[in-house]
Amino acid sequence: MRQLPTVEDVARIAGVSRQTVSNVLNSPAIVKPETMTRVKAAIEQLGYRPHASARRLRTRKSSTIGVRLDPMSNGISGSLLDRFLHALTERAAERGLRILLFTARTPEHEIEEFRRLRDGSDVDAFVLTSTFRQDPRTAWLLENDVPFVTFGRPSGDDDLGEPIHPWVDVDGFSGSNQATNHAIDGGATRVGYLGFDDGTTTALERRAGWASASAERLGLAGRDLAILALATEDGVPQGNAAATTLLASPAPPDAIVCASDSLALGAMMAAAGLGRNALPVIGYDNTPVAAAVGLSSIDQPLDLVAQSALELLFGETGSTVAAHVHSAADPIHRLLTPTLVARRSTELASVENSGFPLAGNHHER
Amino acid sequence: MRQLPTVEDVARIAGVSRQTVSNVLNSPAIVKPETMTRVKAAIEQLGYRPHASARRLRTRKSSTIGVRLDPMSNGISGSLLDRFLHALTERAAERGLRILLFTARTPEHEIEEFRRLRDGSDVDAFVLTSTFRQDPRTAWLLENDVPFVTFGRPSGDDDLGEPIHPWVDVDGFSGSNQATNHAIDGGATRVGYLGFDDGTTTALERRAGWASASAERLGLAGRDLAILALATEDGVPQGNAAATTLLASPAPPDAIVCASDSLALGAMMAAAGLGRNALPVIGYDNTPVAAAVGLSSIDQPLDLVAQSALELLFGETGSTVAAHVHSAADPIHRLLTPTLVARRSTELASVENSGFPLAGNHHER
Repeated sequence: MRQLPTVEDVARIAGVSRQTVSNVLNSPAIVKPETMTRVKAAIEQLGYRPHASARRLRTRKSSTIGVRLDPMSNGISGSLLDRFLHALTERAAERGLRILLFTARTPEHEIEEFRRLRDGSDVDAFVLTSTFRQDPRTAWLLENDVPFVTFGRPSGDDDLGEPIHPWVDVDGFSGSNQATNHAIDGGATRVGYLGFDDGTTTALERRAGWASASAERLGLAGRDLAILALATEDGVPQGNAAATTLLASPAPPDAIVCASDSLALGAMMAAAGLGRNALPVIGYDNTPVAAAVGLSSIDQPLDLVAQSALELLFGETGSTVAAHVHSAADPIHRLLTPTLVARRSTELASVENSGFPLAGNHHER
Repeated sequence: MRQLPTVEDVARIAGVSRQTVSNVLNSPAIVKPETMTRVKAAIEQLGYRPHASARRLRTRKSSTIGVRLDPMSNGISGSLLDRFLHALTERAAERGLRILLFTARTPEHEIEEFRRLRDGSDVDAFVLTSTFRQDPRTAWLLENDVPFVTFGRPSGDDDLGEPIHPWVDVDGFSGSNQATNHAIDGGATRVGYLGFDDGTTTALERRAGWASASAERLGLAGRDLAILALATEDGVPQGNAAATTLLASPAPPDAIVCASDSLALGAMMAAAGLGRNALPVIGYDNTPVAAAVGLSSIDQPLDLVAQSALELLFGETGSTVAAHVHSAADPIHRLLTPTLVARRSTELASVENSGFPLAGNHHER
């Protein structure tokens, strides 16, 4: 990098002390006009620019938000957090804020990064994703009075009534409830459900939305309901396998609501493989893949999530509001409602084991 | 935000000047032991931490790389740059570097951001993506001596022989050449090509790789070759339409190589719609969708692209090397070779207009 002129260079050229140069920049009222002229001439001659980092030190605002970049996911639903990052970066830019990305392999490592960034005043606040039960990260941030907001509510019973920290979430109950009602509106009488097996609030809420609609509109409950649901890891092959199991049962579902587009794509393939191309399948997250293959899906309003997160951190007008100040008049959480995007697939189905006659294994790796 | 103790607070508590506190922090050798003890006690009492931004001002290194986040793309290939951002963030973290994200709607706006970040010493260097012919951004960075590297070579004739700035690229000629050879190895005698119509180096290189393999192995040239290729915008519907056109010609292709997975997915759908489920189709970028539907695709080594970009900026060992210093012994570009990931699709095909009997339009938006 080229050597930028420093305040010392300006002081030497102007024949004054560093403190005097500093006074010219920060307290011009106390500087004699003649000295001012000399220092300004030196600043111009050298092309000296006071560093923003110095200005930052004075104002104690970095105009920067810290975000941990989640490890790359290979699932087709994994891009949700990337899409959120895009929305957050664009909405933050409208407020003159930038995003500082960092990585961390474990929650403990992430807390170390929080500490480092806090100590360096490198960021004004953090936005966290992928929170989990008894998350040590939010505990540390609360203890250390560091402003933050999470995308995803904390796991616990009374988060809605008395949130322990600011959060924005999208109502998973509503999402799968809408999807299930949509399938029933289309004529389904037994709606299957493919969900996650990770015990998160997300998993529980989405399952509850399906169960509630099935109970209210189809009168299903207890074991009659339970046999229509399977929980699995997220992924296309997992969705395929789970849907195959459901469809092979004595009383198979006539529609399947899924907790992700990956599971839904797998379910579509399973149905097509069994000659049931017409089985309605509804996904979650409205990924580009869902649009490409004509899969109906639940859309999370990520732009509104980003905007809400920034409002909880910095206030509606962009003024700085401490995130953790909580009062009844100033709610510190937002629960947003997703929407169903209904599509008609005309393209995807299976031709059993017909395969593509590409060359053998000698080119595979 | 809470009020952090300042150097003024330390000076007041210790009963010394700001300059003395500064000396304790920066030039302890010139401070009397007794004064040192008093200042250190005040620092401890207040929990004062010298700001990293102040340290940064002294060392003129932000340990930060500026990256413009491209606008969100809805195409299934759009995630390539997101995947590159993940790789860059992780490889940068290994060198103690962070990524500062910003947005810009136009190249001119992006140059304004360069200037602002340069003036503020907020970043050490930039990594650019999506470069184009006569890119004003790289011209500005060169003129202003700002270290940078691009993912994507500059458009021009002699970039390989005499690069005008540091770049890392993945050899598109090799990618589509491998794809075409793979199709020919599998028995194809007329390989169609679906490419981009944007006139970029990327578009030209990828087409050239297909043309070269078709000429060498199948003896096709001139008009016989040209009628097998179509250029279009990127997207699934575009791929579907273009492949339909190619397949309807008097001498249709018996395999199709595509410049993206979106085009390839569209081509698969077109082939299936015409009852040609067995037509080999090969995509580009090896997206999660390609893996999900069993599409063979060309994989760009994004981790190696990120690592190479950092090496060109900061040197192989992590030492700071000016990016724009160019010598024969120190090449400033890297052309990396992609690899073919061959898959066998057993799942995707079309059932003409059978559709999914989801409810009507009243839920659509």
